[in-house]
Amino acid sequence: MSTPLRLGIAGLGTVGIGVVKIIQSHADLLTLRAGRPITISAVSARSRRDRGIDLDGYAWEDDPVALAKRDDVDVFVELMGGSDGPAKAATEAAIAAGKDVVTANKAMLALHGNELAQSAEDAGRAIRFEAAVAGGIPVVKALTEGLAGNEIKRVIGVMNGTCNYILTRMETSGLPYDDIFAEANDLGYLEADPTLDVGGIDAGHKLSLLSSIAFGTRVAFDDVELQGIERISIDDIRHAADMGFKIKLLGVAQMTGRGLEQRMTPCLVPATSPLGQLDGGTNMVVLEGDSVGQIVLRGAGAGEGPTASAVMGDVIDLARGIRISTFGQPAASLQPAPAAKATAAAPYYLRVVLQDKPGALAKVATVLSNSGVSIDRMRQYGHADTTAPVLIVTHKTTQDALDHAISGFAETGVVVGEPVAIRIENV
Amino acid sequence: MSTPLRLGIAGLGTVGIGVVKIIQSHADLLTLRAGRPITISAVSARSRRDRGIDLDGYAWEDDPVALAKRDDVDVFVELMGGSDGPAKAATEAAIAAGKDVVTANKAMLALHGNELAQSAEDAGRAIRFEAAVAGGIPVVKALTEGLAGNEIKRVIGVMNGTCNYILTRMETSGLPYDDIFAEANDLGYLEADPTLDVGGIDAGHKLSLLSSIAFGTRVAFDDVELQGIERISIDDIRHAADMGFKIKLLGVAQMTGRGLEQRMTPCLVPATSPLGQLDGGTNMVVLEGDSVGQIVLRGAGAGEGPTASAVMGDVIDLARGIRISTFGQPAASLQPAPAAKATAAAPYYLRVVLQDKPGALAKVATVLSNSGVSIDRMRQYGHADTTAPVLIVTHKTTQDALDHAISGFAETGVVVGEPVAIRIENV
Repeated sequence: MSTPLRLGIAGLGTVGIGVVKIIQSHADLLTLRAGRPITISAVSARSRRDRGIDLDGYAWEDDPVALAKRDDVDVFVELMGGSDGPAKAATEAAIAAGKDVVTANKAMLALHGNELAQSAEDAGRAIRFEAAVAGGIPVVKALTEGLAGNEIKRVIGVMNGTCNYILTRMETSGLPYDDIFAEANDLGYLEADPTLDVGGIDAGHKLSLLSSIAFGTRVAFDDVELQGIERISIDDIRHAADMGFKIKLLGVAQMTGRGLEQRMTPCLVPATSPLGQLDGGTNMVVLEGDSVGQIVLRGAGAGEGPTASAVMGDVIDLARGIRISTFGQPAASLQPAPAAKATAAAPYYLRVVLQDKPGALAKVATVLSNSGVSIDRMRQYGHADTTAPVLIVTHKTTQDALDHAISGFAETGVVVGEPVAIRIENV
Repeated sequence: MSTPLRLGIAGLGTVGIGVVKIIQSHADLLTLRAGRPITISAVSARSRRDRGIDLDGYAWEDDPVALAKRDDVDVFVELMGGSDGPAKAATEAAIAAGKDVVTANKAMLALHGNELAQSAEDAGRAIRFEAAVAGGIPVVKALTEGLAGNEIKRVIGVMNGTCNYILTRMETSGLPYDDIFAEANDLGYLEADPTLDVGGIDAGHKLSLLSSIAFGTRVAFDDVELQGIERISIDDIRHAADMGFKIKLLGVAQMTGRGLEQRMTPCLVPATSPLGQLDGGTNMVVLEGDSVGQIVLRGAGAGEGPTASAVMGDVIDLARGIRISTFGQPAASLQPAPAAKATAAAPYYLRVVLQDKPGALAKVATVLSNSGVSIDRMRQYGHADTTAPVLIVTHKTTQDALDHAISGFAETGVVVGEPVAIRIENV
């Protein structure tokens, strides 16, 4: 067991550098735990600029595909990112050359995970991706291994630290979305394409991977109901807080009688709940199993150290000889699942701006009542001009009933602009 | 890979029955995930009474040692409990007969883990014990595998649900310890020997196992500084709440320059912190690593489903061919660590009852000052008779300085009874 496990690392950004640092600084600890030394044979990146660490001992490859195929590489560590292009080409090359793969690439797996998992299994190799979901939180391992004796009921989570940072900062600063978006951008928190973050796509990628493990289904990112945080207003954050809620970009996946429900959308959660208290860039994933009940996992969702920690957990597993199917069961056994809309009833937060006319409120209440939507709590705020915002928390209702009510508002002649409706999850 | 993994289950209490139920109800799911069927060959328990489930298909052994040695058993599942006696004898017999072992027995591992781990490794077998620590929370896996790339800085946790239940109920009911202890006993929450729970021994067992994994040290339960919750008064719970704290039976393990600090003692934590908000029988473990930062894990710490879930996670790992050293590195490489007292400075909660005399408070303040203990906050409460309770939250101070001050109180002639001092952990 003293044969070293030799890595080829493609991508020397924050995470890649973090991995190199751990291997350089913790050699003895890693050898003890993994049962063999973990070494780096070669690295690859777009440029050979100085990264502040010593890379002299490692071979350099300009081409990640060439790196992936090297005879002195046992595990290809893919930290380049991007769903297609070099990352996918190099991953495929690594598998074809009989290497195991460790990746932090949620986009690649969300779009091509089914095929890549099948290729890896055909080749008797493993693809590990703890770093792709929720940074340093070992949630892929908890779900695939620790909770493997459970029928999973539901997966819920805040899995994009940047969105959570923006929503938290909007609340604490009272500043609107655009200002805090600019701040996050200045701090380097946003992806090159910020829509990946604020549009919920990155978090949706992650949810689709957890869904596959949880429910034994083929990865179906296209079926994730996606809604970003771009339209969340500072008013809604404030009103929600007044009524005891926080707004979070929340992922929910569950198997229903009608199919697999996967959504990554802004939701209200109770301010005093664990999810409600999750501030800043931290991630939280809640796993619900039939035997274990509810398990909550919390930690840093991004950053050099946490993500490198997740990569190293996978690398050490491989050094220990652990090889599990990518999504916890053979790729060929993953079932296609029809996509189900969120039809389960839930309470909703509703913000409607009314013209300041006698009877306006009664008209809105009548529309709700006629649509079968009953009101739990309502607040009318003082108004600046000729309009007044009204906030409503409904009892449990269906999206259909709510849509019916909202379309009915238009006919009242007293509702100004588009009503805002946000689902409330009592997690 | 279609050869079944065959279990022999010793102990058919709550957890044993939970395991049988999962295997009976989830056969297809387990086969898919484990890559092979998981079956039960034989069971053993103290009596053959009806347990409400069908055991007809399994061989019966009165003697767990005989069960452990059976040719048709691959994995011996030890769910009897007890640090010595039949549990230990059967575990040793299983290892000697070349079986892997899955156990929920924290007492046995806390007292004999070093020797058992060595025997298992000598025989090329594994001992898995996820169910022994924090019920359904996959914390052993998170620490041994997911965070294996980290130098672990600290392990903190509430790991005895019964103690947490008692403390929570004291606060919500306003009833004293003895009343709630009786209530917990009536509800069947207490071990046969309740000192195991309320004396902190059970939680100390768990902490010693996590310490070993975290710091690569030999299991040293005897070195755990233990203090139970028996002396926590309703007054202290109330006063702590008034000052923004909750009292928890808190485990802390960390490697210091002087050795390994392990303690399981009542502490104050901020009421708004994740640990402070942990009510009832739930467990929470906080793992701090040099790369990953802080990971928080929360879930049910006991009960049929959660504990059986943990057992099954281990069983499925074994079915998948995963065998890791019991404490994450070879038993022979675990280091003896000198035990260190908690000498790191911390703030303390101090309750002193004073005679209602002019200058009493000044005398106490002078003693504190002369001992180098500085006061952060102080409250004096209205008094019923001729005495008055004074509550003090100190700035960070050492146990030595505090002990010096407390012994100095005796000489003031104004302090009634024993002062209460409880460490504050700002987790």
